Amino acid sequence: MGGPEIERLIALLARLPGLGPRSARRAALKMLGEPHRHMLPLAAALTEAARAVRPCRRCCNLDSADPCTICADPARDQGLICVVESVADLWALERAAVHRGTYHVLGGVLSALGGVGPEDLSLPALQARIAEGGVQEVILALSATVDGASTAHYLADRLQGSGVALTRLAQGVPMGGALEVLDDGTLAAALRARRPA
Amino acid sequence: MGGPEIERLIALLARLPGLGPRSARRAALKMLGEPHRHMLPLAAALTEAARAVRPCRRCCNLDSADPCTICADPARDQGLICVVESVADLWALERAAVHRGTYHVLGGVLSALGGVGPEDLSLPALQARIAEGGVQEVILALSATVDGASTAHYLADRLQGSGVALTRLAQGVPMGGALEVLDDGTLAAALRARRPA
Repeated sequence: MGGPEIERLIALLARLPGLGPRSARRAALKMLGEPHRHMLPLAAALTEAARAVRPCRRCCNLDSADPCTICADPARDQGLICVVESVADLWALERAAVHRGTYHVLGGVLSALGGVGPEDLSLPALQARIAEGGVQEVILALSATVDGASTAHYLADRLQGSGVALTRLAQGVPMGGALEVLDDGTLAAALRARRPA
Repeated sequence: MGGPEIERLIALLARLPGLGPRSARRAALKMLGEPHRHMLPLAAALTEAARAVRPCRRCCNLDSADPCTICADPARDQGLICVVESVADLWALERAAVHRGTYHVLGGVLSALGGVGPEDLSLPALQARIAEGGVQEVILALSATVDGASTAHYLADRLQGSGVALTRLAQGVPMGGALEVLDDGTLAAALRARRPA
């Protein structure tokens, strides 16, 4: 329908997360209606981002600057490193604007089933940052999943004796969370970690 | 987060139908992880489609060939024209593979509220095709909405006396449609148009 150019465009759009074949067709049609206002700017933005964006050599964040904007920011506490699985998690914390230190992006979590071992994570870079000195605290901000927890244990093991304080995110009832819809694990963790009212 | 290149990419992706800011971020991150396998091919496909795809001068379909693949196909009945609102509707009919003739894409329907008048539709091109001769039937395949119905009336009026048979899509119960969930208008139309069992 409409020749190979349209079909190729739809096939590539359909590979984006969140777009199936149907919405890829809608997106292609919308753009074809205004090529100069949408298609060519998007093509340019893709090319430019592919050229400019690289992992930060220090923390593995994705940025067009290296070291990344966060690592290079003198206002961020370089002695406080928040370890996250992915750049998506880093972005979530930055949107919340709740962390005043820097980050370290592991690039995944250990997973026996997924075939992810320690050599697949950016652990040597983290150890090198700690060995440089000046790091007071490493916050393990990993997912509250089995793989996230076992990765946190592994990291705690490897970083023991390095002289930095190791902490984890608190577990409990999420903001706005109704107790009746929470899973048993969350309820148990919230009860165990109860605090004076 | 990550510099202006990433922010610009996310802003443009978020303008695609079906992608909000959240899924635009996910899509950008997925692509940034594999720039050569995804970003650059998509950039090339966008540029190529913007360059190659044009409205067919005959039927207003979007295609990289002009006249479009359907108008140029000798196996399609050139005497049978199916009038649709949009290329999206043309694609839907082509996917169903139920129409053996050609199409005419109006580019919208008349809408007093939306400020769409006859001059905004590709009506002159349709009349020119009919004036050339050889057209036996024009099928009005417009949406079963108020604007679609008034556009069909307008077209019927304008094409009267041109010697072609004017038909419309049947209205009734959709395949797999349970009666109890159908709206009153559909039930009334299905009952009015009842046929021998």
